[in-house]
Amino acid sequence: MKDVLKNRKSIRKFKYDDIDNSVINELLSDAFYASTTGNMQLYSVVVTKDKEQKGKLAPSHFSQPAFMNAPVIITFCADYNRFIKWCKQRNAEPGYNNFQSFITASIDALLVAQTFSMLAEEKGLGICYLGTTTYNPDKIAKVLDLPKFVVPITTLAVGYPDESPEKQDRLPAKGLIHYETYKDYSNEEIDELYYAKENLTCNKNFVEINNKETLAQIFTDIRYTKKDNEYFSQVLLDFLKQQGFVE
Amino acid sequence: MKDVLKNRKSIRKFKYDDIDNSVINELLSDAFYASTTGNMQLYSVVVTKDKEQKGKLAPSHFSQPAFMNAPVIITFCADYNRFIKWCKQRNAEPGYNNFQSFITASIDALLVAQTFSMLAEEKGLGICYLGTTTYNPDKIAKVLDLPKFVVPITTLAVGYPDESPEKQDRLPAKGLIHYETYKDYSNEEIDELYYAKENLTCNKNFVEINNKETLAQIFTDIRYTKKDNEYFSQVLLDFLKQQGFVE
Repeated sequence: MKDVLKNRKSIRKFKYDDIDNSVINELLSDAFYASTTGNMQLYSVVVTKDKEQKGKLAPSHFSQPAFMNAPVIITFCADYNRFIKWCKQRNAEPGYNNFQSFITASIDALLVAQTFSMLAEEKGLGICYLGTTTYNPDKIAKVLDLPKFVVPITTLAVGYPDESPEKQDRLPAKGLIHYETYKDYSNEEIDELYYAKENLTCNKNFVEINNKETLAQIFTDIRYTKKDNEYFSQVLLDFLKQQGFVE
Repeated sequence: MKDVLKNRKSIRKFKYDDIDNSVINELLSDAFYASTTGNMQLYSVVVTKDKEQKGKLAPSHFSQPAFMNAPVIITFCADYNRFIKWCKQRNAEPGYNNFQSFITASIDALLVAQTFSMLAEEKGLGICYLGTTTYNPDKIAKVLDLPKFVVPITTLAVGYPDESPEKQDRLPAKGLIHYETYKDYSNEEIDELYYAKENLTCNKNFVEINNKETLAQIFTDIRYTKKDNEYFSQVLLDFLKQQGFVE
């Protein structure tokens, strides 16, 4: 497992081959053994394979290559709908129309997504997380017919890899682990932590091609801008209201 | 991996044995290879082993057995602090003081937590997720000295198992997997999905001991009540404001 993990990388180019539903079902069934709050299993997954459905879903993920190339798309949803229905049928008054319940169900859904990812990669499949899920939850919900109390929280593009990208770089681990209390970072420590990343040839080229001064500007000015983050924050909060989790 | 997973259960009783820091560091370092949004690694972990620190942290987790018994407590935090500091040192204007950024960093932190869990269990360690983390993030932040833009999102109690609990039951997997669109549940489907769970001897006893009519009432009236959820929703939202993620 460890070896698979340390050599893993997100895959954005997949072979055309379909993945059998039996394979997907087995991986998901196994992933459902992940920890879940109070054993409530507050999640659902929606598998997209149909071309027409995929076409409708594409704009929500900005038609990014990983989405377009993957034979299978799996949307992991925080789901209190099923649990609330059960409560109502059992003379129990559910109190899950609130923010804490959304977070609880999101945690459940994300642990399943990551468990699925690790099992899939161990089996030779490739995956890519689509962070666009929380940008366009309203559009995704429409395409997938998600009822109230169901919120898509992440999506995986899944398929057999058709590329062998270089292993992803990571920050020095010691910089992310704190013992007993959080030791805030000095300027020197920040410099040290980001030194290797900033000096990768690919990142240096990326800065140059984009006419930026620093790698950090690639993130703030291009990839994850204040304007986008603010806009999509409002979309997400509005959607949480619509789905019943925020007043 | 699959076999470990299918036979896993959360552990709440641990041997007294400490876990070496080198073991924890290695497991965490490996877990950091999990997928992360834009390779930003928006998380930090705080390891608690010191008895005095653990004592201060205990009330935040309601001194639950898994917390009290575990030799090691690991708090997984959504962390934009480090990234924002880097941006500021690199003449880049960060725009991460918003809800979407909190969700992004939370996803990153949760994928690491679950990766760590799976690696730890493969190594023979036991873990238990502490959902209390998002109930008392403000109190946890005080004990762990978490700065602005750092929010504890989940906690793991970790140690060598001193119990072999029965395998956890799960809902029939097919009920949680939807193809193409979400098929909402009929009354009959809800009955069918929850049938096995409701008829487990332990759950039947639990209902009887607590003088409840149904298992669902155990959740709504005792374990996850409307009153608690509403109270802790406000605590969490106030804390997100305090940490800079919500206006």
